[in-house]
Order: sequence, then structure tokens, then C-alpha cells
Amino acid sequence: MRLAFTVEYDGTDFSGFQKQKNASTIQEKIEEAIKTVTGSDITINYSGRTDAGVHALSQVFDFETSIKRDNKNWIDGINSNLPKTIAVKQIYDVPEDFDSRFSAIERRYSYVIYNSKNKPLFFNRFSHWVTNELDTDIMESELKMLKGKHDFTSFRSSSCNSRNPVKNISFTSIQKIDNFIVITISANAFLQNMVRIIVGTLIDISKNENKLSITEIIKKNNRNFAGKTAPSKGLFFLGPTYPKNFAVDSLELSIFDRLKT
Amino acid sequence: MRLAFTVEYDGTDFSGFQKQKNASTIQEKIEEAIKTVTGSDITINYSGRTDAGVHALSQVFDFETSIKRDNKNWIDGINSNLPKTIAVKQIYDVPEDFDSRFSAIERRYSYVIYNSKNKPLFFNRFSHWVTNELDTDIMESELKMLKGKHDFTSFRSSSCNSRNPVKNISFTSIQKIDNFIVITISANAFLQNMVRIIVGTLIDISKNENKLSITEIIKKNNRNFAGKTAPSKGLFFLGPTYPKNFAVDSLELSIFDRLKT
Repeated sequence: MRLAFTVEYDGTDFSGFQKQKNASTIQEKIEEAIKTVTGSDITINYSGRTDAGVHALSQVFDFETSIKRDNKNWIDGINSNLPKTIAVKQIYDVPEDFDSRFSAIERRYSYVIYNSKNKPLFFNRFSHWVTNELDTDIMESELKMLKGKHDFTSFRSSSCNSRNPVKNISFTSIQKIDNFIVITISANAFLQNMVRIIVGTLIDISKNENKLSITEIIKKNNRNFAGKTAPSKGLFFLGPTYPKNFAVDSLELSIFDRLKT
Repeated sequence: MRLAFTVEYDGTDFSGFQKQKNASTIQEKIEEAIKTVTGSDITINYSGRTDAGVHALSQVFDFETSIKRDNKNWIDGINSNLPKTIAVKQIYDVPEDFDSRFSAIERRYSYVIYNSKNKPLFFNRFSHWVTNELDTDIMESELKMLKGKHDFTSFRSSSCNSRNPVKNISFTSIQKIDNFIVITISANAFLQNMVRIIVGTLIDISKNENKLSITEIIKKNNRNFAGKTAPSKGLFFLGPTYPKNFAVDSLELSIFDRLKT
């Protein structure tokens, strides 16, 4: 029997999702909690690693087990063994050919900028503070230029080891909600730091510190023409999308709806 | 020249407002920041101490100085020397007879309960998680019984050293906002842990774990008949009110309005 779970986390206190030696990671905490519940050493599959400090509303992981419990028991059992900044939310009984990573056809991220002269005191862990007033009209028109299939070499970190820099961005949006600016991007897959470099570049363009357009930067195929990598604390993985036959309804659509509820 | 400031803070990482030996306090951080800006050792007056872990949207403090700077310089100068979880917001040039503590005629607190089966992941630092579904109608009718002038001995901590347990509650409200329940109370002054004991008692009554009414508990004049002290993390000091002639407009009216902006 293969089970999939959605999990949300505040990434502030972890060295990212993927297990590492000598570092506290979200994968490690989840596998420890599963071990306490099942008594077995299990390695989970997951939809995508997130870097140190990055949050998730709906990461997905799966594992194989022969243990039978009802859904509520699984969720409560795992949650009671997780730190308070990680929580599993839903459980799905998935077909054997489901894989959280390889079955995903799309992933969505949102980035939260707190745009104010005042400190983002109560959202400090979950937003990037920018004091210069940003122009969301300019940012929106630049953001749209990312849509479609492009070689995103200009927007990948130097340590990115993805074999193919060509990705397909299917959705972009920018919302201004009080002092917050939320930038949302969906793609089939992302390069390392891609969203954070895009956000840093949009900020630089809005501040007129980068005279190139997003289209021009894409064409350069060179990281040096894009902006700074925006800090991890503002980044949320909203979740992956799977083909309908898996019936895994994982994607969260809005940070603010989630934060309120 | 006497200056007053409003200051907000996330109290999670501090041992309360009031300066102590061998503990990190908000007063200490503020006085250190002022010393960096003015070069002088200054002891601030403040409207009310808050306990370890309690937050504030609008604490008020004042001090005497002969240094002249414009308002923006004062605020930016102090803020750039404060930790990121403390921020001064407004500055007021006040008369010599103003005192943040003794001039205050009323204080307001809100308490945030996160009432859901799910963990309050992103509000973990700022809310008290209660999984049993609470009845806000019952809580509201009990809460109203607190209004007026009463001896609140039943709602004070055993270490409270206030000389007079009689306080006058002028305002109460309870709001249900998505999964949050926000209880707000204004009084001329509060006893130690008074709001937290009131909230703990309302929770117990709603869960039917305390059969007494608030009126009955007040009449007992005995802490043992009230409920548990709710944890500090859900408590926000919204601020004091001063007589109009001081022109210090310090009170924040809503946690959620503040958190959004």
C-alpha cells in the first residue's frame, strides 16, 4: 500500500527539506515521526526539495507500508511526533505507480515581499522586507515576459545541477494586499533559486537598478545580468499538481487564505 | 524636552519588558538603542510591563533628553539599533508632566486563540492552540460579566503585588475570525496574569470543565475557582489611553488590522 501526504512547514529553523548529515532537515523530522508511528525505517519520496529557510503550504511525500490504520490515526500519529513547525494535513491512498516527485506535472511557488518603511514585525519569518516603494505595474508587465518555454540559465544559481535549463512557466501573478506583494509562479519544474532570482530581478527593475527587461535578461543566458537572489524567508512552495487520475489534490492557492485559517 | 514613543514587539524571545539582571528584556534593548543614538545612559518610563513571551502592538515609553533631532531621525536611529523583533513606530513631543505609566487612564489587551484541529503553524508564535471547538456565544455572555468595577482577586497570580485588587473593566469583546478567536479587554489597570487567567477560565467554562459562572468566580475572591493561566504567547498589549491633552494617540484597535499592514 502506498500512502501520500501533504505537509506544511515553517522552514525558518531547518537546513532545507532534503536530508543531510549534521543538519536538521524537514525530511529527517518526517522520517523520524513515521518511524515512531510504524516502527520501520522508511525513506520518503517527495515532490521537490526546498532550500534552507523556505516554507511550504503543501509539500507532498509518499512511502510504501503494509500497516493499516485509519486516516485520522495516520495524521494524528505523525503530527504528534513532528516539531510544532511541521504539520501533515491530508492523506491519500495512491496507486503503486504514484511518485511524489516524478508524477508531478507542475509546481507552484509564491514569494512574499513586505513593502513598507516599517519592519514586518509579525511576518518577519515569512516575508522579505523592502523599504523602497515598488511599482507593481512595472513588476507585473516584466513578470509576464517569463511565461512560456524558455532557457532560464540567467535565473539559475551557479550550483544548480539540473540537466536541462529549459522550463515552461504556465502561470504568473502579482497581488498587492495591504503592505504585502505576493508573486506567484507555476512551472513544470524550477531551477535552483529560480523564483528567488526572478523576484530579486523584478525588485531591481522596479528600483531602476537594472535597465534590462526580463526578455533581454532571458536572452543573455547569463546569471550576471539578473538580479540578486531574494532571501529564502519570503518563499513558499504552494505545492505540486498531479494528473487527475491520482486524485491527489495538493495545491494551495493562496498564502493569505492559508495564513488566516 | 520629553519624548514619548510607541513600540511594538514580538515578545517570544525576551524575558518580558522590565529590565532584569542576566536576562534579555525589551527595556534593556530599547535603552541600549537609545544609548547608541544619544550617547547617554537613560532609564525609560513605560506604560506597563509585559511578561515573558507577551507581545505588544503599542507599548509606550518616554524619556528626557536635550538632544534635538527631527522625528524621522529619532525613529530610524533607534530602530536601526533594535533587534528585528522590536520596532518603534511613532514619536510624540510630550509635556514635562507626562509619564507613560502614571498618565495612562486605560489599557487594552487582546488574546488570540487558534481554535482548530490543525496546528496554528504560521501563527504559532502569536496564538494559543485549542483543539476542542469553543462556544463563543457562551464565552461572550460570560466575558460580559467582567464589565464594571470588581475585586478581581480570583483572577490574579499568586505573585501579583498590586496593592488594590479592585479594577474597572470598561470594554470587552470577542471576535471569531476564521479559526481565530480574539478576546479584547480594556481596564483602568490589570492585575498580574489577569487577562490570561480570564481567558483560561473562559476556555474551561466553554469546555464545561468549570461549572461556575464568571460572576460566581468573582464573588469567590479566590484564585482556585478560576481556570488555568492561558500561555503568554497569545497575549498582545494593544496599548494605553491617555487624557486628550497629551495628544498621544497610542492605542491599536485590532490585531488583525495590524498584522495585515
